[in-house]
Amino acid sequence: MTYLIDGLQYANWSERIFRQMREGGVDAVHVTIVYHENFRETVANIERWNRWFERWPDLIFQGFTADDIATARATGRTAIFFGAQNPSCIEDDIGLVEVLHRLGLRFMQLTYNNQSLLATGCYEAQDTGLTRMGREVVAEMNRVGMVIDMSHSAEGSTLAAVEHSARPIAITHANPADWHPARRNKSQAVIAALAETGGMLGFSLYPHHLKDGSACQLTEFCTMIAGTAERHGTACLGIGTDLCQDQPDSVVEWMRTGRWTKTVDYGEGSKDAAGFPPMPGWFGDNRDFSNIVAGLRAVGFDKDEVAAIMGGNWARFFAAAFGPAQAARPAAERAAE
Amino acid sequence: MTYLIDGLQYANWSERIFRQMREGGVDAVHVTIVYHENFRETVANIERWNRWFERWPDLIFQGFTADDIATARATGRTAIFFGAQNPSCIEDDIGLVEVLHRLGLRFMQLTYNNQSLLATGCYEAQDTGLTRMGREVVAEMNRVGMVIDMSHSAEGSTLAAVEHSARPIAITHANPADWHPARRNKSQAVIAALAETGGMLGFSLYPHHLKDGSACQLTEFCTMIAGTAERHGTACLGIGTDLCQDQPDSVVEWMRTGRWTKTVDYGEGSKDAAGFPPMPGWFGDNRDFSNIVAGLRAVGFDKDEVAAIMGGNWARFFAAAFGPAQAARPAAERAAE
Repeated sequence: MTYLIDGLQYANWSERIFRQMREGGVDAVHVTIVYHENFRETVANIERWNRWFERWPDLIFQGFTADDIATARATGRTAIFFGAQNPSCIEDDIGLVEVLHRLGLRFMQLTYNNQSLLATGCYEAQDTGLTRMGREVVAEMNRVGMVIDMSHSAEGSTLAAVEHSARPIAITHANPADWHPARRNKSQAVIAALAETGGMLGFSLYPHHLKDGSACQLTEFCTMIAGTAERHGTACLGIGTDLCQDQPDSVVEWMRTGRWTKTVDYGEGSKDAAGFPPMPGWFGDNRDFSNIVAGLRAVGFDKDEVAAIMGGNWARFFAAAFGPAQAARPAAERAAE
Repeated sequence: MTYLIDGLQYANWSERIFRQMREGGVDAVHVTIVYHENFRETVANIERWNRWFERWPDLIFQGFTADDIATARATGRTAIFFGAQNPSCIEDDIGLVEVLHRLGLRFMQLTYNNQSLLATGCYEAQDTGLTRMGREVVAEMNRVGMVIDMSHSAEGSTLAAVEHSARPIAITHANPADWHPARRNKSQAVIAALAETGGMLGFSLYPHHLKDGSACQLTEFCTMIAGTAERHGTACLGIGTDLCQDQPDSVVEWMRTGRWTKTVDYGEGSKDAAGFPPMPGWFGDNRDFSNIVAGLRAVGFDKDEVAAIMGGNWARFFAAAFGPAQAARPAAERAAE
């Protein structure tokens, strides 16, 4: 079975976008529900999703396990998996990891650009790695089956997370920094650490992560993927578009500044280009994944490799990542199987 | 299969009590996790339970569906089902019904003694039935599969809930008021309304609900059950002990006054007997259900009837009550089965 899975989106969700997911044949999407929200605000965001699930049950439903990808395909719908880009949602309370996992949170970044209670973000001057709480939370995420996502983390913290985590981790949306030296892109050392431990890298289509930005050509993007595959194999590669479709620019401002500053921070943008950058012409929404498929074929990937990169690898990773750690399960429960 | 199920407990939980559940062969217990807690406080209580589940996985686990009763029996553990005695946990936010259901809340009282946002409690002077929000929340509880529990509600509100609810409701812990005229006990009209609609009554062992209080004899209690069965049949009858084992008296004060008054309210107690009353000698903890089994046999119930009252009826009710309403499920999902 060939699945189409997007490793990250944060759109201004609507029926139109959900219908585009169906038109594009997207089986599963990891959606962001947290940038700076605390626990109660995160729950309010989940409530909004619940209303969408209730309103458009023939287009989308919430995914909890990797089996839901097959259910999505079988029923002609898209499975929506929740993720947080910031650990703000667990506040200072490790018990909220399990609670949010129960509510369907399947990914959590340990940092979003800044220092968090857990680790260092990629915009900080000093990278101190995992904090005391960070090590505890990584172990708890391992136990319940929540993916550690280091997309917005600093390099040392990322390598520390790979090392400390008992289960493979992910960078859901970023590209190699030696292709385009953005602060959010990742070193070959980080990508190698992912590849060696069964982790995943989702290639981003957010223009600030692309060589030539919005003008990046499809062939250029796919050649970069081919180069990464040559170096690290294809098993660790997926797509994480970072699609922020239909969002007003006020949202990118919230993403960048939350409540942590009273001044303006342009993040990856600048004063003259403060808003969301326009997407490349060959990827505007969920109907355009076929362009990437064609682009990957054109640079020499065979059919099976393309299937793996477009969703097969994420599907395998989801299956290994979303359940409780085997050792953590009680003997009686295991015996009953 | 003969199951042993308790329709309500609120103990000062400990390994000792969980071991007594195993000694007593208790397959499932509906435990109270909310008296006056708001949403965040309720989540903190769930976190406490999660730590207990993690610490004693060979004694207890969280129940989500009626199938977990069979799992409990098969694995020699007790399934713990969460319930709230007060809708304080959903605050003024109907979306929290689905969120708390996802976290495992399977019962919610619409009121706890006082007027709530949803209905009238049994201690209010005026009973105005279901409020505007109350009708909406009943429909939402019906949709997701959360049991409406009217144990602490006023008579008119209870009858209104039976009528408005599309699914059977429960009174998890109370006795007939014509046997012992406590404000918390229920009229024959209310019990008849439950019986006619597939609802359930859990007989309480809390001394304030018993004729002669703590001195109530087992035969007296079982004769009352026999009289209720004669009038309403056995299908609607279960046990809801209201066991508050090992609780300090500060807890009964919290149950009665929460944050709604600055003065003392003795509830079912009195100034001279403000604390928890001592349990009857024949039911002190989870190891004593066998006394009730013997008592029911002694007053003439046959083996099958006793099995139904001790757990079979609750098991059937759980199976019908805990899942989403059939009509609310999307066509695609139903077609995929």
